[in-house]
Amino acid sequence: MPEPLPAVGLQPQGVPAARQTRLDSFVQRYAERTAHLQASEIRALFAVASRPEVVSLAGGMPNISGLPLDAVGEALAELTRERGTVALQYGSAQGDPDLRRQVCEIMSLEGISASPDNVVITVGSQQALDLVTRVFCDPGDVVVCEAPSYVGALGVFSAFQADVEHVEMDNEGLVPEALTATLGRIAAAGRRAKLLYTVPTFHNPAGVTMSAARRAELLQICRSSDLLVVEDNPYGLLGFDGSPPRALRADESDRVIYLGTFSKTFAPGFRVGWVLAPHAVREKLVLAQESATLCPPAFSQLAVGAYLSTCDWQRQVKDFTEMYRERRDAMLAALDEHMPAGTVWTVPAGGFYVWATLPEGLDSKAMLPRAVTARVAYVPGTAFFADGQGGRHVRLSYCYPPPERISEGVRRLAAVISAELELLETFGTPSASAASSSYDKPHPNLA
Amino acid sequence: MPEPLPAVGLQPQGVPAARQTRLDSFVQRYAERTAHLQASEIRALFAVASRPEVVSLAGGMPNISGLPLDAVGEALAELTRERGTVALQYGSAQGDPDLRRQVCEIMSLEGISASPDNVVITVGSQQALDLVTRVFCDPGDVVVCEAPSYVGALGVFSAFQADVEHVEMDNEGLVPEALTATLGRIAAAGRRAKLLYTVPTFHNPAGVTMSAARRAELLQICRSSDLLVVEDNPYGLLGFDGSPPRALRADESDRVIYLGTFSKTFAPGFRVGWVLAPHAVREKLVLAQESATLCPPAFSQLAVGAYLSTCDWQRQVKDFTEMYRERRDAMLAALDEHMPAGTVWTVPAGGFYVWATLPEGLDSKAMLPRAVTARVAYVPGTAFFADGQGGRHVRLSYCYPPPERISEGVRRLAAVISAELELLETFGTPSASAASSSYDKPHPNLA
Repeated sequence: MPEPLPAVGLQPQGVPAARQTRLDSFVQRYAERTAHLQASEIRALFAVASRPEVVSLAGGMPNISGLPLDAVGEALAELTRERGTVALQYGSAQGDPDLRRQVCEIMSLEGISASPDNVVITVGSQQALDLVTRVFCDPGDVVVCEAPSYVGALGVFSAFQADVEHVEMDNEGLVPEALTATLGRIAAAGRRAKLLYTVPTFHNPAGVTMSAARRAELLQICRSSDLLVVEDNPYGLLGFDGSPPRALRADESDRVIYLGTFSKTFAPGFRVGWVLAPHAVREKLVLAQESATLCPPAFSQLAVGAYLSTCDWQRQVKDFTEMYRERRDAMLAALDEHMPAGTVWTVPAGGFYVWATLPEGLDSKAMLPRAVTARVAYVPGTAFFADGQGGRHVRLSYCYPPPERISEGVRRLAAVISAELELLETFGTPSASAASSSYDKPHPNLA
Repeated sequence: MPEPLPAVGLQPQGVPAARQTRLDSFVQRYAERTAHLQASEIRALFAVASRPEVVSLAGGMPNISGLPLDAVGEALAELTRERGTVALQYGSAQGDPDLRRQVCEIMSLEGISASPDNVVITVGSQQALDLVTRVFCDPGDVVVCEAPSYVGALGVFSAFQADVEHVEMDNEGLVPEALTATLGRIAAAGRRAKLLYTVPTFHNPAGVTMSAARRAELLQICRSSDLLVVEDNPYGLLGFDGSPPRALRADESDRVIYLGTFSKTFAPGFRVGWVLAPHAVREKLVLAQESATLCPPAFSQLAVGAYLSTCDWQRQVKDFTEMYRERRDAMLAALDEHMPAGTVWTVPAGGFYVWATLPEGLDSKAMLPRAVTARVAYVPGTAFFADGQGGRHVRLSYCYPPPERISEGVRRLAAVISAELELLETFGTPSASAASSSYDKPHPNLA
């Protein structure tokens, strides 16, 4: 699976935590942070959702079926034969120098000028998030995040006991005035934001992209507030229109830590991501990597390097993008055709996700079991907030199923929503779930 | 490199920390734990030590030149062609079920009976240490470790701000009476040991193996003290005589967390290790893995699985072991032939390392630059202690250089030690380094 399963409760009246841990004889020994590791209460449901008859609009797995597997296999065989004693050996904690050079060339496509010496290779960009958070965040530190935000990042911040403050977004991304207001509130409370975490381009889950004007405003606020930005950019090269948006890091090298990955442009199975950071931070990240893994897998790194230099990877990204564009179009068309009035959604210009807002009175988490029964799955919006917001939202992924399945999935989902609406109109409450209407806070700006 | 570079100072009068961090504008933002990430002051020296004219007895890299690279390459090509959409995709956080079954078969060679459901695949066993420590250790918690102990484990405990208490070893491993006394001291101080970390078999760096009687005593103490054991066993299958020693985990499944790895029996470049833990702990480790990396690399796991099922891996381990035995014999013979009186060393029955104690009055850390000048490198003993002990010790690795280079390296080292002794006898102080004689605490039981 592409991301940790979101920690959203299926039933508001679920099993109390004390009962779940009764049999754990180690419970008195765990570190405090262990209580902050988020278990997924919808794991069991997702097991059902993975049945072939269910259309899953829940996952974020890239569709890698278009990769030239024979050519990749041959490149890996050659790598093993020719450079096996390097590829199968320990490497440096910072990562392979050749791959770090290739990473810099890739980032230059987004306007970034960087030295390979400031790049650290990580075990996917999830580990980049883990290392950055462990280097910067003490328990109780504040991390400012978009509302909504990537579920895997929220999980890391929680695991290191950081407090998340969400900042409103609209169709142009993070709202600068809202950021300023949040920073003001944090300062007024005598606290300080350690990091601002943002996915400016083809946002997961919101499906929006920060405009150029907003990027400039954001950087200006960060400079004047002395705020460090973590720019997470897994989807930057997967845009449907023209060149990739210019990265925040392209215009600010001193206070932007940039995270990248090959999971969406090539393949997640090698777990190769990276961090580009100011030199002093890079040094800490290398020490943290040494402690965490000694070194990232040499074979993975050399495999990605061999793929980049022997295959036409830019052509492949273009093919991927065409495929994702077709699927996005299928989803948008189906939403237009089937969704009942009162449902609105974002229109992504790249990436994997549409963020939809249900009609008032509905609860996306409570509705999920009914959706799965109707053979369609999604991720409820609450997964993407640290504070219980998001109850009227759903994330719909178009990356994995083929277009006709996407259309069918959206049709099924629309039918479920319509049925819920009918119940609501008839009885004043949708299905079994009015109990969780406390989550029912809309995000009117995101649609 | 096979382990983090040890954090031992080259010069007692080195650059003060304040001066080193003067240019780091982020210094006020780091988490507290970041100050506990250990930077290596001998990194620069090891860069010199990696020159071809220097015999390095410092590293712990396995010698993988004997691997059948053509066959491995062909297996990887086939894996990519036939199962590429699985091998290149995200996997589960716990790790591939087939590999977890294979891991259980391997552990059965050490007497362990375990369910694949209690195994978590990690990014090398270093990440297993990281995950176990993050799940159990709050800042200030006590971890009991052997004296000496694996430098990478000490680094992880430090990174999570745990306090290490060392327990004496002798040629049969950890001394039970010393463990009891240490636990008593910890309890008397109103504290509690969270974990006992041990490498019972072919110890790194001490080169000794815990006897069967000691293992039983150790487990008895752990049961009566309600102490959780972390059994780190990277070298268990690399013994020179007969069957692998029976693992601690084989006789105690409730309070032993077992760590294994393919880095020494196959290849470190895939970074595939594992943890076997009681079920409740396993659940926490999976959540921690999800937060740390989403999932370990699927390709690495399937590559190891393919190697195990298509190549004669047990034959390969036997070949590795024969090679290491020959190198150990070369080292022991050279030590016998060249070392001046007063130098003693352990006799490993497997694994990679000899632990030597220098004549009284010598300082292995201060001597290192002279040794490198004489074209031989080792790791000073202080690297393997959290408390500054080990100044009279050196770890000598025989895993990587060929036998004739090992003999030459030991000859050079013996000449350096003899020269130091001569200075000591003539002037009452060896070379430039009497300043650090505070490290000069012998471990008389380990020889």
